[in-house]
Amino acid sequence: MNYIFNRVCRRLTYSKYSQHYRTLTEFSEQRYEKNDRSYVNVSIKLSYVTAGLIGCYFYVNKEQKFAYAAKLEKKNEAVIPGKFRNDLPTFSLEDIQKHNNSDARIWVYYKEGVYDITEFVEGHPGGEQILMAAGGSVEPFWMIYGIHENPHVYAILETLRIGNLKKEDLKSLVDDMDDPYANEPRRHIALKPASKKPFNAELSPLLLCENFITPKNHLPVPEVDPDNYELEVEIEGKSRILSFTLDELKKLPKHTITATIMCAGNRRSEMTKVKAVKGLNWGPAAIGNACWTGVKLRDILKLAGVTEDEENLKHVQFEGLDFDATSKQYGASIPLWKAIDNRGDVLLAYEMNGVPIPRDHGFPIRVIVPGVVGARNVKWLSRIYVSVNESPSHWQQNDYKGFSPSVDWDTVDYTKSPAIQELPVISAICNPLDGQKVHLEEGYLKVKGYAWSGGGQRIVRVDVTIDGGKTWHVANFDAQDSAVPPKHWAWTLWSLKIPINEKIKDGEELEIWVKAIDSCYNTQPESFENIWNLRGVLNNAYHRIKVNVCR
Amino acid sequence: MNYIFNRVCRRLTYSKYSQHYRTLTEFSEQRYEKNDRSYVNVSIKLSYVTAGLIGCYFYVNKEQKFAYAAKLEKKNEAVIPGKFRNDLPTFSLEDIQKHNNSDARIWVYYKEGVYDITEFVEGHPGGEQILMAAGGSVEPFWMIYGIHENPHVYAILETLRIGNLKKEDLKSLVDDMDDPYANEPRRHIALKPASKKPFNAELSPLLLCENFITPKNHLPVPEVDPDNYELEVEIEGKSRILSFTLDELKKLPKHTITATIMCAGNRRSEMTKVKAVKGLNWGPAAIGNACWTGVKLRDILKLAGVTEDEENLKHVQFEGLDFDATSKQYGASIPLWKAIDNRGDVLLAYEMNGVPIPRDHGFPIRVIVPGVVGARNVKWLSRIYVSVNESPSHWQQNDYKGFSPSVDWDTVDYTKSPAIQELPVISAICNPLDGQKVHLEEGYLKVKGYAWSGGGQRIVRVDVTIDGGKTWHVANFDAQDSAVPPKHWAWTLWSLKIPINEKIKDGEELEIWVKAIDSCYNTQPESFENIWNLRGVLNNAYHRIKVNVCR
Repeated sequence: MNYIFNRVCRRLTYSKYSQHYRTLTEFSEQRYEKNDRSYVNVSIKLSYVTAGLIGCYFYVNKEQKFAYAAKLEKKNEAVIPGKFRNDLPTFSLEDIQKHNNSDARIWVYYKEGVYDITEFVEGHPGGEQILMAAGGSVEPFWMIYGIHENPHVYAILETLRIGNLKKEDLKSLVDDMDDPYANEPRRHIALKPASKKPFNAELSPLLLCENFITPKNHLPVPEVDPDNYELEVEIEGKSRILSFTLDELKKLPKHTITATIMCAGNRRSEMTKVKAVKGLNWGPAAIGNACWTGVKLRDILKLAGVTEDEENLKHVQFEGLDFDATSKQYGASIPLWKAIDNRGDVLLAYEMNGVPIPRDHGFPIRVIVPGVVGARNVKWLSRIYVSVNESPSHWQQNDYKGFSPSVDWDTVDYTKSPAIQELPVISAICNPLDGQKVHLEEGYLKVKGYAWSGGGQRIVRVDVTIDGGKTWHVANFDAQDSAVPPKHWAWTLWSLKIPINEKIKDGEELEIWVKAIDSCYNTQPESFENIWNLRGVLNNAYHRIKVNVCR
Repeated sequence: MNYIFNRVCRRLTYSKYSQHYRTLTEFSEQRYEKNDRSYVNVSIKLSYVTAGLIGCYFYVNKEQKFAYAAKLEKKNEAVIPGKFRNDLPTFSLEDIQKHNNSDARIWVYYKEGVYDITEFVEGHPGGEQILMAAGGSVEPFWMIYGIHENPHVYAILETLRIGNLKKEDLKSLVDDMDDPYANEPRRHIALKPASKKPFNAELSPLLLCENFITPKNHLPVPEVDPDNYELEVEIEGKSRILSFTLDELKKLPKHTITATIMCAGNRRSEMTKVKAVKGLNWGPAAIGNACWTGVKLRDILKLAGVTEDEENLKHVQFEGLDFDATSKQYGASIPLWKAIDNRGDVLLAYEMNGVPIPRDHGFPIRVIVPGVVGARNVKWLSRIYVSVNESPSHWQQNDYKGFSPSVDWDTVDYTKSPAIQELPVISAICNPLDGQKVHLEEGYLKVKGYAWSGGGQRIVRVDVTIDGGKTWHVANFDAQDSAVPPKHWAWTLWSLKIPINEKIKDGEELEIWVKAIDSCYNTQPESFENIWNLRGVLNNAYHRIKVNVCR
């Protein structure tokens, strides 16, 4: 009975009744044969989310597949979620933050409401992702997962209500005016910082594929007054300097591209397991995809008199408005051909996903160099310099370069390797997470993730294996834009339902590997051992995670 | 003594005296100490190649390094190599062909001279490469290795003279007029055919890095009369057909590029070891590099009215003058962007390495699509068709595509994979050969080979290991053209001297691996297991060979 009981609960979780489901109060089953098939008539009763009961009858056939669901009874009650309630106690933000695990009980808040979700976690249709809000607000997550904007969800939430949030805590923010990071923008609660100052945060991979962008900064975030902003454009060997205000830039022809931007250190934490490297310990979420709108750098360069046949000038240098402790600006450069080519699509972007670029992402102007490592997508852009040489900046000359696994900090010579520009093909599993317990769906394990390749290459195939490469399953593409190589800048979101052999027992560990293949038919290296490098960049070996199967 | 004796012989082999050296007739050594160093004074006498003796004295220091060579005596005699000699017997080509191994003795011929080189093989400065001429002519190899055009070499050869070649055999060629392949061009003796009809041959990797091109054909080689040749250019949806004679094409602006062309099946024989595939059993030499001269396809398309902003037309189809048994022409296509882009460098070539393209390579016109798989570099070009669609040919639609390792001939669906265009990064070791006995040079093992990447990417690093990846050695680049990505079309020739630990004994087996990294920092997959595909294409796993060390 326990098996069917579990299946009913899981089925409900994924059914159109999921919003109504709170707890199961009654359960009975009756087996019978009909037309050579064996059926189980399951009768369940669920407590309804606001009041009353819901009753469902399920027929389960021999293969444990639900054949029929009928008879639903419910009563609705109007619910105003998160509204202050006089009948409940008040808690401070600090109180709530302490309740972030099941031992201390799991609390969250929504508007003025405080909720104890400890028992609800197991039944949450979205699984354990809800735990990311533990001890904090659910709102940022609901902004990403639009499905929560639903009266049924508010109704479920209110059944878990235990109190009210202290009014003063709703707006709490303490600035330390001596701190160069004092004026940093407020960050999304879902971002787990890899470093706080400068702010480098990573989203849980579970949220990643929901089109959310991770900010990655080298230095404190500057505060730019858009009315006084000016962009300078200078050409080596020419005395005339062009300058553009934000309004002037916005009057030039407007272009939009969808592009994925990835940090060279994405997935560094896996390389670190081979041997320590220098760098922030990124998981697989130092990457993001967005729509960028702005002016083509090509158009600006043409206004400045640079042509496609230019022979002496080779590089376009960018300077940001962010300064380090010695007052040096952030800087980087890209090859001139990429900047001026009609198919290069380099933008000076002022919008991200249809709104002005947020401060963390480079307000008011960020260079978007699609297909190229994040470090060259300079934020808070202040100056463009077309030159014979690459940018002299630390980040161009002595960082973001690849080396042989046998090069160490005693032997490294940064002049020997080229600065990373276009990135190699990569992929990652975002759901499930490494170490997670996974429930099967009708005998299948569902896996999803992203794949991407630099240089405008399209992903043509994603292969997944759970038996060390003996069998490879080809994933389905859930989202891929229609641009053709070499102008395919956006990532591919993929998913796959892998059939799990019945011999695999409850609790058994599975290792899932993924690799992607791009339109040049380049694929990923198998392991980190042979691509290890002292700076921990270019971490594009197969992504391998271990999960435990729950039967 | 034997050790020093061997070293003297090897040293001579690589010294400026190598041409004089025939056999060692006297050897003596005398050890002494001087200035805290231990010396061995070695006195040797060598029989001189034409007459008399040569005496050299070598000083060998404690590290077995030669410090000094002195006293050379010689007598020269004029030699006319390969000239008919009345005092020697005459042999037929058939006689010579039987003597192709050391048991039967090894014979070669040069012009009218027949030579027994059995004893000379060991002392040959170029090592065992000489065996490729066994039972045949040395001339084709000497054309590649210019060093042989030297009076000393002729002199050595004449000391091995045993007879004359039958005059009739010098011009022997038998044509079977019923054979569709009867008019095939005469092929270089160094080409080992993977298939004879159509002719698909591979060069020994030892010769490969000497800039020699392997011909790879799908169908019989057509015989084209250059005076009657016409190239047709047609645009889908337009009624006007352009046509160009060879002379008209040669009057258009002339461009030269150096480009490597590789077959998608290069190195297939290694993938076959995992599991059988369909296809010719290519080693690592189904690749070649040459200078190509001709007209830019871009210029032809512009004459035909196709612009860079063309939105409906997507592909440029090519048809060759070679027909299969059902009278279907060879055909292929490339994306229009590649054909028309200023940086695409697609040529309609009429010269290869400064001479009219040989018949095997596509006389009179071959399309050169740099960075793209050989199959799209259509030979004996007859027609260009700019279209909404890809070429409908078998080779575009149902061949030259990649698949997951789990796809077999029962499940394969050719519509699911894109036609291979740009190729992924690859490398190979050309010298030593797999299974070869290798002599160390002053404690070092010399390894050389090629590396290349499609799409105009440059090779930025080649890593070699002889200890399964524990230590990686970065190779030196011996030849790399100066073009920058994404217009870097030629391969990179590399070499490396790897220090061999003294613990490695005589006869011990070493496994050498190589991998290359391109300017997108894409690298090769480690093994063939996870990239296996039923057609045996895209064989770019690490190249691994085994050699035995000779101390």
